[in-house]
Amino acid sequence: MRCEVIAIGTELLLGQITDTNSSWIGEQLALAGIDSLYQMKVGDNPERMVECIRHSLSRSDAVITCGGLGPTQDDITREAIAEVMGVGLVRHAEIADRIQQMFESRGRVMPQNNLRQADVPEGATTIAQQPGTAPGLICPVGEKVIYAVPGVPNEMRTMMNGTILADLQRRAGFGGIIKSRVLKTWGHSESGLAELLSERIETLDTEGSATLAFQASGIEGIKVRITVKTQDEPSAIAMLDAEESALRQILGHYIFAVDDQTMESVVLDGLRRKGLTLAVAEISSGGLISTRLSAIDGSGEVFRGAIVPVAGSVRESVLGVPHDAIGTEEAAATMASAVRESLGADVGIATTSLFDLPVTGERPPGTTFLGLSTAAGTEVEQVRLPGDRERIRQYSVISLLNYLRLKLLA
Amino acid sequence: MRCEVIAIGTELLLGQITDTNSSWIGEQLALAGIDSLYQMKVGDNPERMVECIRHSLSRSDAVITCGGLGPTQDDITREAIAEVMGVGLVRHAEIADRIQQMFESRGRVMPQNNLRQADVPEGATTIAQQPGTAPGLICPVGEKVIYAVPGVPNEMRTMMNGTILADLQRRAGFGGIIKSRVLKTWGHSESGLAELLSERIETLDTEGSATLAFQASGIEGIKVRITVKTQDEPSAIAMLDAEESALRQILGHYIFAVDDQTMESVVLDGLRRKGLTLAVAEISSGGLISTRLSAIDGSGEVFRGAIVPVAGSVRESVLGVPHDAIGTEEAAATMASAVRESLGADVGIATTSLFDLPVTGERPPGTTFLGLSTAAGTEVEQVRLPGDRERIRQYSVISLLNYLRLKLLA
Repeated sequence: MRCEVIAIGTELLLGQITDTNSSWIGEQLALAGIDSLYQMKVGDNPERMVECIRHSLSRSDAVITCGGLGPTQDDITREAIAEVMGVGLVRHAEIADRIQQMFESRGRVMPQNNLRQADVPEGATTIAQQPGTAPGLICPVGEKVIYAVPGVPNEMRTMMNGTILADLQRRAGFGGIIKSRVLKTWGHSESGLAELLSERIETLDTEGSATLAFQASGIEGIKVRITVKTQDEPSAIAMLDAEESALRQILGHYIFAVDDQTMESVVLDGLRRKGLTLAVAEISSGGLISTRLSAIDGSGEVFRGAIVPVAGSVRESVLGVPHDAIGTEEAAATMASAVRESLGADVGIATTSLFDLPVTGERPPGTTFLGLSTAAGTEVEQVRLPGDRERIRQYSVISLLNYLRLKLLA
Repeated sequence: MRCEVIAIGTELLLGQITDTNSSWIGEQLALAGIDSLYQMKVGDNPERMVECIRHSLSRSDAVITCGGLGPTQDDITREAIAEVMGVGLVRHAEIADRIQQMFESRGRVMPQNNLRQADVPEGATTIAQQPGTAPGLICPVGEKVIYAVPGVPNEMRTMMNGTILADLQRRAGFGGIIKSRVLKTWGHSESGLAELLSERIETLDTEGSATLAFQASGIEGIKVRITVKTQDEPSAIAMLDAEESALRQILGHYIFAVDDQTMESVVLDGLRRKGLTLAVAEISSGGLISTRLSAIDGSGEVFRGAIVPVAGSVRESVLGVPHDAIGTEEAAATMASAVRESLGADVGIATTSLFDLPVTGERPPGTTFLGLSTAAGTEVEQVRLPGDRERIRQYSVISLLNYLRLKLLA
């Protein structure tokens, strides 16, 4: 089973937007055991879209078009697919109603243009999942098929996961499954991890039970992906479990999370298990730690709140610390303990970097102090973070959370 | 002059790497006045690479292949191009020497594999710039041309800027330039904007002085891109200025920013102009407003800090507001005025959503209250935001900042 991906939109060709949808779809197809040998980008031009889709269908069994399902005049994927199918467009009253309701629920009037989104090529069916106003389409062309999904990433992903991947696997008559698990690591380089794992990788090359792949993910650390290919779900899970535990023996506490877990979800779980609450004071990270913690459902049970004291007088009036408590080891300690007390939490954490100061002197601006305070006392760790201001901010968040994670393990 | 881009590498199809080279090349081609109507990704497979290049050459004047010029066995772009040209490969002694010297200057021994990089299709010339070990190639095919560049971004860019763009323009006999400007809007739907601008677009279609394109960017609003094609930079800027002012007359305050400006940079500029400082209390957005404001260099002059009072007792102890001040109009007002006072700012803003409450009752969880407090008094706006929790958070940030922006204009 071969499936191509066609990303649609003149803005993609002009480089106004980078096409990340195709990469994501390519990865999902590979994991689902579907070959994707070509991917294309084409602009909002009817002849060229039709040519592209025809060319793809001539050499593959399926095509996923991504984009061009919006309400405006340059959204013409529906028309292009209808032409390839040799049919006309039919307006679906049910979809039109649904779109109308979406606008009403937001207290807005639907522009007439949006009704174009209810036009569907004759013989096509719509995809059950519809997170936005654009319905996804399944369009049969003889034995082959065109799937049309919107270019909005979360809408596209919902339709891929909810319908298209399973439909492709069904068409492929594919019995086996491919399953992956991602171990997320922090604190070691990619080449360092590769060295630690080199023996294990040699063993796997011989045994063939699983494959490992590395993926450097910047401020999210380095991911190690385990992939197994087998007949059914239970044996796949057993194989992944076995490989995960082999890797844990080698990598130990470098592994901070698995699959959908994040550094912040792991930290919140650790606090919850110990019945502890958390307060945050952040200068250099300016709200990032709070943002990441509060994004997690149920974090409010553990996370009591945060203070971002940008002005010195705010540090003094709100936290009761000296207004010059900034960019030093002492500042991180004072703020961690002050925020713990003033927000009534069991644990206080704080971060401040040299770049918070007007002048950093000779020390690199990424020099960052991570403060951690509990009833038992207050500690500070100093780290040197690379990159520009924004990267230092991001690195300080994961460094501080990882510092707390390791303390919670102890 | 039409030029296609073919990104080469199985890892691109599998989504292990996102192809950003094509976007960059596409943008440079557009700015250089060269049409790029198709872009493709293909794996390290000789037949498919040859098929792709032939197909592209059949409909365009030039092709840029990107990747597959490395020293390993799966780097086969040289061979594929030679096949399309109907010639063999010739080893260039001069290039072989240069590669050898590169290794020596780094104190390393050259693996024999690297000599493959000195193999050039007969009749092709090499590109003068060669930042790495892979030479770039200019390969004539009749009147048409294939350019081969490495996939390493800085090597590719050096060759594009140093040779290829100028070579394409020379072939096209083209003297002019293309320039764009992006107007960012908030508060109206894409189809609504299209309706407002439909007359203007018709005029432009006739006059041909500029083109407009819409781009929905989710929580960043909807962008309207003006593009002009003319002989020189000053006349391009004059045309963009004229079109921007025509659009401002139609769209008015929907336009919040231009090009690199963001909602937060515009708000900070507005406060700075009026000599006002800002304090933020955010429950639903959990630190996002603070994160975005603090990301901007120099924001500390205006932005005094933020409080994220997740726990009710934190609202009481830190802000001095009732602990049940959450998820209501009154809560937004109380917090805005309290954070203004306790952080000693001229303006206090606050946001809280229904989803901050344990039970939202019959009202949709996206119902959000935006509070704004100054010495003159406190106001609240209620908005209904769509989507899941994370989207509501994101929308509440831009809604609150836009609310403040409009007040600053008044």
